Amino acid sequence: MSAIKDDQQMYLGIDGGGSKCKAVLMSADLEILGQGLSGPANPLHGFEQATASIVDSARLALADAGMAGYPLQRLITGAGLAGMNLPGLLEQMLAWQNPFQQMYLTNDLLIACLGAHNGADGAVIVTGTGSCGFSSVDGQSLMLGGHGFPQGDIASGSWFGLQLVTKVLQSLDGLTAASCLNRQVLDTLACKDTIALVELVVGKPATFYAQLANLVFDAAEQGDAMALAIVKDGAGYLNNLARKLWQDKAPRLSLVGGLAVRLVPWLAKDVQQMLTAPVWPAEIGAVLYAQQQDARQEAASA
Amino acid sequence: MSAIKDDQQMYLGIDGGGSKCKAVLMSADLEILGQGLSGPANPLHGFEQATASIVDSARLALADAGMAGYPLQRLITGAGLAGMNLPGLLEQMLAWQNPFQQMYLTNDLLIACLGAHNGADGAVIVTGTGSCGFSSVDGQSLMLGGHGFPQGDIASGSWFGLQLVTKVLQSLDGLTAASCLNRQVLDTLACKDTIALVELVVGKPATFYAQLANLVFDAAEQGDAMALAIVKDGAGYLNNLARKLWQDKAPRLSLVGGLAVRLVPWLAKDVQQMLTAPVWPAEIGAVLYAQQQDARQEAASA
Repeated sequence: MSAIKDDQQMYLGIDGGGSKCKAVLMSADLEILGQGLSGPANPLHGFEQATASIVDSARLALADAGMAGYPLQRLITGAGLAGMNLPGLLEQMLAWQNPFQQMYLTNDLLIACLGAHNGADGAVIVTGTGSCGFSSVDGQSLMLGGHGFPQGDIASGSWFGLQLVTKVLQSLDGLTAASCLNRQVLDTLACKDTIALVELVVGKPATFYAQLANLVFDAAEQGDAMALAIVKDGAGYLNNLARKLWQDKAPRLSLVGGLAVRLVPWLAKDVQQMLTAPVWPAEIGAVLYAQQQDARQEAASA
Repeated sequence: MSAIKDDQQMYLGIDGGGSKCKAVLMSADLEILGQGLSGPANPLHGFEQATASIVDSARLALADAGMAGYPLQRLITGAGLAGMNLPGLLEQMLAWQNPFQQMYLTNDLLIACLGAHNGADGAVIVTGTGSCGFSSVDGQSLMLGGHGFPQGDIASGSWFGLQLVTKVLQSLDGLTAASCLNRQVLDTLACKDTIALVELVVGKPATFYAQLANLVFDAAEQGDAMALAIVKDGAGYLNNLARKLWQDKAPRLSLVGGLAVRLVPWLAKDVQQMLTAPVWPAEIGAVLYAQQQDARQEAASA
C-alpha cells in the first residue's frame, strides 16, 4: 500500500488515442504513483470501447500504485481524447456517467501541449498515427493540419506508410528506380508479389499504414533514394507547420508522438532550433489540465 | 421492335467501372442496336451493386433497341470489369448465377485495348476514376499501374481529386500559397470552411474524389500554380507508363477513359507522338472479346 495519506487528493491523467489509452496516477504535488496502459480510446471509433479503455487504464494505474481497491469516485481526472473538437462527440462524452469524482474533458492536443510545456504557453506538433499542429498562447488555441487519412495528416505514420506503399508499387512495376524498400515492404507484410500486396492493402485504415513508417526512416538513414524523397517531402511539410506555429508567437515548440525522435534529424536547421524537448508526456498534461480546471472552479465558487 | 430476326445471335458488351456501367447491344456483324448506362460496377466496391448494375445496363440497352422484353438468357455477353486481375474477385464473379446465355468475363483493360485497336495488338492507358496501363502483344498481356485508391491509380480522376483536396487543405491552413482552387473546391462541395470540408471528405471513396478532377485541369489551363504542380506530377507518371508500354513493342498506344482528352496536352512530346485515337470504346471491345471467345469455344468443340 502506498504512503499516500487517506485524505490527500489524487489526480488521474488520461491520454486516449486511436490505438491505446495511457493513464497516470499522481499526487497533488505531481509525484507519479502509478501508470496504466489499455486499449483504444478514440470515441470516434467507438464510445463503448473508449469509455471501457479509460476505466481499465485507471484501474491498472491504481494497481500499479499498490492501491488496487481504491475507489475511482475519489479521483479527480483529466482526460484528453482524440475527436473532442467535434461537437457531437464531445457532447456524447460529457454525457457519460463516468465513475470519477470529477472528470475534466478536453482534446488530446491540449494535454500534449500542457504536458510538453509543464502547463505553460507553447505549441506542439504531434506525429503518431496521425499528425497535427496545436498552439495555446494567451488563452487562445490554434489547430493546424490534421484533417485525417488519406487527405490530411501529412508526415504522420499513416502518411509515411501510404507514401511508401504508393512508391513501392510504382517501383515494382518498373516505372521508377528499384529500392531496397520493395523487398522490405513485401517481406514485412508477408506478400510474395505485387498482386498479393495490392490485395492486402485494399481499404486498409490509417493504423495499418502507420505500422510501416519506420521502414522509411531506416532506409532513409541508409541513403535509399526512394526513402529520402518521402522523408524530405514529409519534413518539408513539418517545417512549414513549425514556422507557422512559431509565427503565432508560441514561446516554446515541441515535436511529440511516436515518430518525433525519427523526424527531428530531417527537419530544417531553423526548425530544429525552435524545438525544445517536451517536459512531460501527454497523460501528465492531462493531470495539469485537471488541476488547472479544478483551481478555476474553486476560485469561481469562492 | 427491332428488325433483328428472332434466330440471329446478338451480343452484349459490358464495360463495368467504378462510377458507371456501360452496355452495348450489337448484332453479330457489329451493328449497334442499343446502349445502356447504369451505376457503379466495380465488384471490388460491392458485389451486389456491380451485378445489379450489369443487369440494369443490359436491360437499358435492350429497351434502347426497342426490345424491352427480350430475354437476357439469349444474349452472349462479354464483360470487362475492374478488379478481375484479383483472383478472389474473379472467382466471386465467375460464381455469379448470371442471367445470360453465356458470359465471358475479363478485366476492363483488355476490353479497352481490344476496342481501341479493333481487336488487334496494342496498348492502352486508361484514365477515368482509376488508371492503368495495359498491353496485349503476340498473345501476351502486361498490366502496369492500377493498384487502387488511394495507394495506386496515379494520374486517375480519383488521384487528381485527392491531390487537390490534400493541397487545398494545406493552402487553407496557410501552410502553402493561396490558389483559386481553394474557393472552387469549397464552393463545388458547398462547404463554408475548412472544418466543413474535412467533415465532408472523411472516408470518401475514389468516385467522390474523381468528380473533382476537372477543377484541376480547368485551373491548370489558367496557369494556377497549385493545379500546374498536380497536373505535371500526374503527367510525369503517365509519360513513364507510356514509354514502358512502348518498349514492350506495342504497335499502337491509345489513351482512353474520361480524363484522356484533358491529359494529352500535358504529356511529353515523344509520348504524344506514340498515341493513336481509339477505334471503338471499351464496351464494343467487350463484344469483340465475347466473339473471339465464342469462336475459340466453337473451334475447340468442333
